[in-house]
Amino acid sequence: MSETFTVEYSKLFHFTENVFLAMGCPEADAKLATEVLLSADLRGIDSHGVARLSGYVRLWEKERINAKPNIKVVHETPSTAVVDGDKGLGLVVAPRAMKFVIEKAKNAGTGWVSVKNSNHFGIAGYHAMMALSHDMIGLAMTNASPLVAPTYSLERLLGTNPIAVAVPALTQPPFVADFATTTAANGKLEILQRKNAEAPTGWIQNNIGKVSTNPHELKDGGALLPLGGDREHGSHKGYCLGSIVDIFSAVLSGANYGPWVPPFVAFLNPPAHPVGDGIGHFLGAMRIDAFRPADEFKKHMDNWIATFRNAKSVEGEKVLIPGDPERDMESKRLQFGIPLVVSVMDDLSELGKRFGVNLV
Amino acid sequence: MSETFTVEYSKLFHFTENVFLAMGCPEADAKLATEVLLSADLRGIDSHGVARLSGYVRLWEKERINAKPNIKVVHETPSTAVVDGDKGLGLVVAPRAMKFVIEKAKNAGTGWVSVKNSNHFGIAGYHAMMALSHDMIGLAMTNASPLVAPTYSLERLLGTNPIAVAVPALTQPPFVADFATTTAANGKLEILQRKNAEAPTGWIQNNIGKVSTNPHELKDGGALLPLGGDREHGSHKGYCLGSIVDIFSAVLSGANYGPWVPPFVAFLNPPAHPVGDGIGHFLGAMRIDAFRPADEFKKHMDNWIATFRNAKSVEGEKVLIPGDPERDMESKRLQFGIPLVVSVMDDLSELGKRFGVNLV
Repeated sequence: MSETFTVEYSKLFHFTENVFLAMGCPEADAKLATEVLLSADLRGIDSHGVARLSGYVRLWEKERINAKPNIKVVHETPSTAVVDGDKGLGLVVAPRAMKFVIEKAKNAGTGWVSVKNSNHFGIAGYHAMMALSHDMIGLAMTNASPLVAPTYSLERLLGTNPIAVAVPALTQPPFVADFATTTAANGKLEILQRKNAEAPTGWIQNNIGKVSTNPHELKDGGALLPLGGDREHGSHKGYCLGSIVDIFSAVLSGANYGPWVPPFVAFLNPPAHPVGDGIGHFLGAMRIDAFRPADEFKKHMDNWIATFRNAKSVEGEKVLIPGDPERDMESKRLQFGIPLVVSVMDDLSELGKRFGVNLV
Repeated sequence: MSETFTVEYSKLFHFTENVFLAMGCPEADAKLATEVLLSADLRGIDSHGVARLSGYVRLWEKERINAKPNIKVVHETPSTAVVDGDKGLGLVVAPRAMKFVIEKAKNAGTGWVSVKNSNHFGIAGYHAMMALSHDMIGLAMTNASPLVAPTYSLERLLGTNPIAVAVPALTQPPFVADFATTTAANGKLEILQRKNAEAPTGWIQNNIGKVSTNPHELKDGGALLPLGGDREHGSHKGYCLGSIVDIFSAVLSGANYGPWVPPFVAFLNPPAHPVGDGIGHFLGAMRIDAFRPADEFKKHMDNWIATFRNAKSVEGEKVLIPGDPERDMESKRLQFGIPLVVSVMDDLSELGKRFGVNLV
């Protein structure tokens, strides 16, 4: 384990909000972007949280992020819309679009919005969970820059393209699934690269499409693998899932898809001949009582959750409900603070100097 | 390879239709059920086709399938509905419900129907593909009797719960994903059991939750594994997917979920204290032009498909588009007939005698 510093959530919030304000974000946007970004740190998905703050700043410097976007609906029907994010922070565009999705669902039973011209939106789970307090099921997915080789491909054509689904229960905490459609998230590979440790088979392939356990081969023509790992273990299914996310998020909205999705890192230029605008998201909400009375549904969800959680389990383990580990982490980190590794602290300290903001 | 007989599609159609008619299905239903059932044989998913015909008959004999169902909408909003299948053949209930979904989408932009009180609906892909000719994206999923252990569970709590998504293109054939949310479909395990062959690791676990390569352990307290296989390879993601299918199909509709889903085989009784009615499906359709002009979308789908299909590939392989292998199989089998193994021929011959119908 490398050394970590622990920072109180409220202090990290204040700092991050001030960085977004310094970028020129309107007050409400700075607060919203901070809440979305830090929900990743709270929930233990450290790769998607404040560790990326300097990345957003660098994209803004290159004018690939617009701090004052005019987010607008460009087309709609009773249950659908396409939203143009105007190059805004995905951290702002996505929750605004999700709010609109929820309004649609109030009237039409469900709401579905495909978003173009956006950027990285933090963790998908945040947006899906926005539906819960409205007694709705929430869905969120996004495409991302190409790191993943479809089954039998040597080229990286898909992002880690996550899917999140949040379902309310009555007395039980909600069911919250939030997962990349790859065997392993890119963040896990980065950790192995730093440690010079081996990766399990099924996570990556090398530049001729052979199984590799060397995480450095990702930088040498290798690729992440779709959930399943190889054909025998169902990688074609992970490839299907990543493709569905790409199509719903980008081909439906008019964003870039496949190999044209612009990279998150500012030092790499977006592909020269884009096929759309920015990156794409797909967001949905379904009102529970558009199907059956909400309380009836939620009682059955309680039963579903209790049944799974109490199932006989492998010795030393227990069956988890999607969302359990993240919720536990969130309550711990709200109480005891958020641990940040040295490289992230250095990053934040640089940002602090630049914008005249202090972390502690 | 065991010996096979090849039967013309039209003859198999005629035979199957007559069996459904003999069960008492109305003419239109018998034709529809046959088309849905045999779409599996045409597309090469032999486990879900005419091989199951005698299984449907046995369920009908036990009065668990109603040949003359009164399929009805029990609740609806502009974009949603719950349909009660009245214990009908899933092969009839699902396409009827999908027709209703498509009507919803015409008006509201999208349509979403959760179905209860149904039975096995054949291949999910058939229902999803119904949307294509309407310039819509189609989705279909269903829950199924419990064979799958969630990550760390010793109990089987989920079915192989497939997901299908069909997306139209312009000059390219459509994108049609249709996959079980397990590493391997149950049909593949049955083949290995018959051959006494080993299963790859990651397909099944034994009765104490350890990796197993012995397919017979499935009958001895073992279980199929969610897509991913084990925790290190992302089985929690496959578990999430199977759960989402279960919740959308059954908790939303009022069907049985989790361990309460009734078995397809008639010799096993349904669980004693059901939590709902029959099994559940979830069907959806999204009108392309509820998002952007259909031709514009379909041109980009052509580009998406061409880009993926022409990607540089592993030596000796090529990158497939979901739906490619099944479409190739369909055109072959329409031309050259459908191969049936001896055990299936014997089954059909029994059915023929019983109902006074000849196959050839």
